[in-house]
Amino acid sequence: MDKAAVLAPWISPGRVPVTSEEHFAPSNIALCKYWGKRDTQLNLPVNASLSVSLGYLGSHTRLVPIDYSADEIWLNGDRLLPSAAFSQRISAFLDLFRAPGQCHFRVTTRNSIPTAAGLASSASGFAALALAVNDSFQLGLNTEQLSVLARLGSGSACRSVFKGFVEWQMGQREDGLDSHGVVLPETWPGLCVGLIKVDASVKSTDSRSGMKRTVETAHLYQSWPLQAAADLQQLRRAITVGDFTLLGQTAEHNALSMHATMIASWPPLVYWQPESLACMQKIWRLRQEGLPVYFTMDAGPNLKLLFERDQLEELMRHFPDMEVIQPFGDD
Amino acid sequence: MDKAAVLAPWISPGRVPVTSEEHFAPSNIALCKYWGKRDTQLNLPVNASLSVSLGYLGSHTRLVPIDYSADEIWLNGDRLLPSAAFSQRISAFLDLFRAPGQCHFRVTTRNSIPTAAGLASSASGFAALALAVNDSFQLGLNTEQLSVLARLGSGSACRSVFKGFVEWQMGQREDGLDSHGVVLPETWPGLCVGLIKVDASVKSTDSRSGMKRTVETAHLYQSWPLQAAADLQQLRRAITVGDFTLLGQTAEHNALSMHATMIASWPPLVYWQPESLACMQKIWRLRQEGLPVYFTMDAGPNLKLLFERDQLEELMRHFPDMEVIQPFGDD
Repeated sequence: MDKAAVLAPWISPGRVPVTSEEHFAPSNIALCKYWGKRDTQLNLPVNASLSVSLGYLGSHTRLVPIDYSADEIWLNGDRLLPSAAFSQRISAFLDLFRAPGQCHFRVTTRNSIPTAAGLASSASGFAALALAVNDSFQLGLNTEQLSVLARLGSGSACRSVFKGFVEWQMGQREDGLDSHGVVLPETWPGLCVGLIKVDASVKSTDSRSGMKRTVETAHLYQSWPLQAAADLQQLRRAITVGDFTLLGQTAEHNALSMHATMIASWPPLVYWQPESLACMQKIWRLRQEGLPVYFTMDAGPNLKLLFERDQLEELMRHFPDMEVIQPFGDD
Repeated sequence: MDKAAVLAPWISPGRVPVTSEEHFAPSNIALCKYWGKRDTQLNLPVNASLSVSLGYLGSHTRLVPIDYSADEIWLNGDRLLPSAAFSQRISAFLDLFRAPGQCHFRVTTRNSIPTAAGLASSASGFAALALAVNDSFQLGLNTEQLSVLARLGSGSACRSVFKGFVEWQMGQREDGLDSHGVVLPETWPGLCVGLIKVDASVKSTDSRSGMKRTVETAHLYQSWPLQAAADLQQLRRAITVGDFTLLGQTAEHNALSMHATMIASWPPLVYWQPESLACMQKIWRLRQEGLPVYFTMDAGPNLKLLFERDQLEELMRHFPDMEVIQPFGDD
């Protein structure tokens, strides 16, 4: 099944797009990772995942129909070349909604993610774009449908349509309409995420190709869905009862297990830098000394620390350059 | 089943031990790793493994019956404390052959492994001890039985009873009598192993406990036997046809997959140091530049490079402190 077939029931072919509001979608950090697709066309995952959205950090996107012969993609005030990979992904996404030759857009995206943070922006970017498309084409979709729409742009974007803790249910349908984010009712006001940026001197493999290589070459990947399912259940419980140790342990174990499947791929897919490892060792040392701090990592060399607000001051002493986010606000 | 029950048919209770010759057993480096026990009592492995013995590098051991009230264990000219873990493992091994109170031994072991090499010595140590026990107690065992004996001391010691390429067949019997090393008929005169020592600033977990933790906590470990079985088959083929690329790729993929199972354990079992990772990155860079060099790693931070003699000079320029071993001699 392809994207156009999934979207067909939602689109009125004659509808003329209008200028949208500016729409916001937050970044999200997965505590149980999305790693591996069962359908590469529709970005349907092998496993369910769970994330926390990062409050006001994310992407602001507006769509303006224009009379030019191509889309104009603006990112943080700079116009991207039409040949840039990101421009092409956005134009291909817009093609799903417009008739051939119907119109082009000026897409203006502003990321409120600190540039030093080392956060991927495709999740919040495609989530905000999905909201803007819904507005511009007056699709009138509900939040679950918006999450499906965002997923068609970039898998983990389906979680960025929501605030707070979000579970991406893997679903079972071939068209993927049951594979979308669902908000958990709980909040965790004291939860902090600390972003630690590690310089990547080696160019990394994008997560799309990384997943593909892992699925195709790592025998160990066959057990990844088991680990992810167990972790998801533990995380749900940790969030329900407010058990920070369980949350932190499970998130760290999950991230390391995901990296393990990458390391077991061929050619080896090692996103870690020596500095990443030094930072992990520092965290394990601090934890042994009694400080409740854990980390998670995505397909890159950066660490994201997980801790509670009580530990903020002490952790800032150990990691003075850390950028701290409080996903549920700071009060 | 316990060790004594396995050994009972081989032991004549009345036999008085005599002074043995000095016996030698080589160190070995696994190209397909042994990781995980299906029987912790008898050191029976979850998967078959394959190693190359390191020529003249290994352990020289002699047994002398003495009239003292305890064993005297000498290692490289120093007497070990009876309370040292290594002394206790050796005495426990000797207890399997002597009647209670029968006698004690002076065990003299000399390792010809360069101290800077970062090689484990328990494999060659227990293999040489098994040979010396066979001599002292006049057991008259054949090589397969000697390999079983060595395994009861330390799993991978069963491969160190032989020279050259050795496959440890996992076996199926409950008593483990079919779980021993078998020599492959092939040799590979140009094969080189380069030892690169990385300082371990963090005390590491011994491989016995490491295996246990992996088996008990890493879901990913469930797929390890699949990876190992596939790798073993590829290595056999590489050795038969003399395909160095296949040998190197498979050995590196296997080692990284084993480390992946450790990394996916909880608490995390990461034997790598930042310097190990920097060294891996250097090897991947050299390989991209066309140099055929691969690595393997055991339960520690050190790398063992695999290459052919043609590349020796160039590799010495890149790794001037590397200790080079030619398992099949240097002619």
